[in-house]
Amino acid sequence: MSEVAIIGASMTQFGQRDAWVSELLAEAGAACLDDANLAPSAVDHLYVSNMASGEFEGQTGVPNALAHDLGAMPAYTQRVDQTSSSGGAGIYAAWQSVASGASEMTLLVGGEKMTHRTTAESTDIIASLTHPVEYKTGVTLPSFAGMTARHYLERYDAPREALATVAVKNHRNGVDNPHAQFRKEIDAETALESPIVADPLRLYDFCPITDGSAALLFCPEDVAHEYTDDYVTVAGVAGATDTHVVHEREDPTVMGGVVESGRQAYELSGYGPDDIDVAELHDMFTILEFLQYEDLGFAEKGKAWEDAEAGVTARDGALPINTSGGLKSKGHPLGASGVAQGYEIYQQLMGDAGNRQVDAEVGLACNVGGFGNCVTTCIMEAN
Amino acid sequence: MSEVAIIGASMTQFGQRDAWVSELLAEAGAACLDDANLAPSAVDHLYVSNMASGEFEGQTGVPNALAHDLGAMPAYTQRVDQTSSSGGAGIYAAWQSVASGASEMTLLVGGEKMTHRTTAESTDIIASLTHPVEYKTGVTLPSFAGMTARHYLERYDAPREALATVAVKNHRNGVDNPHAQFRKEIDAETALESPIVADPLRLYDFCPITDGSAALLFCPEDVAHEYTDDYVTVAGVAGATDTHVVHEREDPTVMGGVVESGRQAYELSGYGPDDIDVAELHDMFTILEFLQYEDLGFAEKGKAWEDAEAGVTARDGALPINTSGGLKSKGHPLGASGVAQGYEIYQQLMGDAGNRQVDAEVGLACNVGGFGNCVTTCIMEAN
Repeated sequence: MSEVAIIGASMTQFGQRDAWVSELLAEAGAACLDDANLAPSAVDHLYVSNMASGEFEGQTGVPNALAHDLGAMPAYTQRVDQTSSSGGAGIYAAWQSVASGASEMTLLVGGEKMTHRTTAESTDIIASLTHPVEYKTGVTLPSFAGMTARHYLERYDAPREALATVAVKNHRNGVDNPHAQFRKEIDAETALESPIVADPLRLYDFCPITDGSAALLFCPEDVAHEYTDDYVTVAGVAGATDTHVVHEREDPTVMGGVVESGRQAYELSGYGPDDIDVAELHDMFTILEFLQYEDLGFAEKGKAWEDAEAGVTARDGALPINTSGGLKSKGHPLGASGVAQGYEIYQQLMGDAGNRQVDAEVGLACNVGGFGNCVTTCIMEAN
Repeated sequence: MSEVAIIGASMTQFGQRDAWVSELLAEAGAACLDDANLAPSAVDHLYVSNMASGEFEGQTGVPNALAHDLGAMPAYTQRVDQTSSSGGAGIYAAWQSVASGASEMTLLVGGEKMTHRTTAESTDIIASLTHPVEYKTGVTLPSFAGMTARHYLERYDAPREALATVAVKNHRNGVDNPHAQFRKEIDAETALESPIVADPLRLYDFCPITDGSAALLFCPEDVAHEYTDDYVTVAGVAGATDTHVVHEREDPTVMGGVVESGRQAYELSGYGPDDIDVAELHDMFTILEFLQYEDLGFAEKGKAWEDAEAGVTARDGALPINTSGGLKSKGHPLGASGVAQGYEIYQQLMGDAGNRQVDAEVGLACNVGGFGNCVTTCIMEAN
């Protein structure tokens, strides 16, 4: 079978946007088609990664609206939801649509519109993804993160300051991302003295609430040649679940879905952790960057913080993590985030990442749903 | 490539259920695994067709809950939403997962929990799938159906009584479906004298609001042989959109998404309308059974009502339509309906349809999202 190629990508400005999700999706979708110089009528399948437009906006059926707005009719449309990993699930769905032969040209657009809601309302919508036994007792994703961070720091004898290095690094990277919500450097002191949210985690350990959209265009590699000589291929993509009830996990510092989806993606691609040149990890909370870094085999368990402090994961380090600024500074519009991770890896592998550019032939994106309840990992390579 | 086989199927009792959607999904999912005698650990991918658990129940992340409840971890999970055609979209997604090689065993479970809401609340959630320009002016799916029915009857010189034959037939079929919401025969007079909802359509031209779930199990045909000698294969499945703004359609009696998805499914399968022995059509409104019957090529435009009146579509007719009782009497739990259509075709092709059994080697299911905004058509054959 022909490999699956990515021949176009786009993302909108992330942040507080005066536009509904349908408008954001149309903006990213049209920009992606422009990027590939493709007519909308050439799209066979159109996937929309979105968690909760019904809950946030009272609007459903957004994939049909998007087919309409882009002029992509009669393209098949469908919404892909896997909570906060909807974007990564969209990459997997788009890959399957092409690899199965069902589609020769698949446009994936992820997006979410959140900032018109209060933080309490948004948090409530997001918390609805947890198991009722957790939700009803008031345990939310930030509180899981706080408990996990405390456990990690104590168990692996890591300093609290190590978490701040993630925030500082990702804010530094975000400065060079024109689409990022926050383009502002911070110092460790700012992170360490910010208000407590879920002890020991503070405000700067959390990603913001964001509006935005991102898009990727997939086709068989032999079709890609008709449009361009420069593209990226999907070397391996996979997804896996962990327990839905977080406290049932044997080791709270291991995200089983990351381990398993990573294992499968490595196997499919023929690459291993040492082959990855750049990665986007799901830093919804700073602690998650450490967990994924370890669970994907970039460091032994309990050692990610050492690499972070040593600068290994900085843009000029041996394995740059979240060159985009990550969810931390780029923002986290739920359904868009996994697609935007793919956008960053695509830009890096195409050599189009501007001031953020690193030397990379193989890149990885890991998108985490819930508190690792379902995870997708995608490995891409330059052609 | 090996064909994609279906080796197990189930559906729960449809109707008013004292259970949340997660419980309904778990009931159908477990029954489907039992039907195929398969351990949950053998499931690679788990898809959940569901339109609006967040809006109906304030609960999202149901695919993760289902993986947990079935013991299917670390199976990859994802929610498939295509509004009222989420079930058909799930069949398409499950097919793609197997045909692409991403999964060797895919469980699809569709479900919705609706009856705990008032009719006004449910209608509001459903109406959110329409284009805002329609929704805000008060045009809902039932009103589209009324206007389309009036146009059809006048243009094709069809008697109002013809629509009642659909309701009478589908109620008759539902009597023999142990899972149907309504197992009650009605006569034409009852339908014709029921309260007006959207003139000329009356209460008995509409499907009810329903709770329920259904499931199908997919694998490559060469894997199917390891489990059973009796299975069904997917001969062709496809999906397509029509305009999202309904009044932009050139001919209100043609559903473009039905025509296009049917054309593709016929082409992929090598079958044509004359080869279909039994079909489940999306009779959310009686008029829709006529439109799909014509748009799938079973009759010329404007002639479906003649076949209905002549008994062609009855269980003992030449082309039985909605042997399950259809959405009309079986019920319409949004995300479950397309999967339940597949369940009925599977049962018919396996020879397991009990009192509803017809002579069939090739069957078709057509699942309509919105007012034809997106449609999937699936053709299955006995092995």
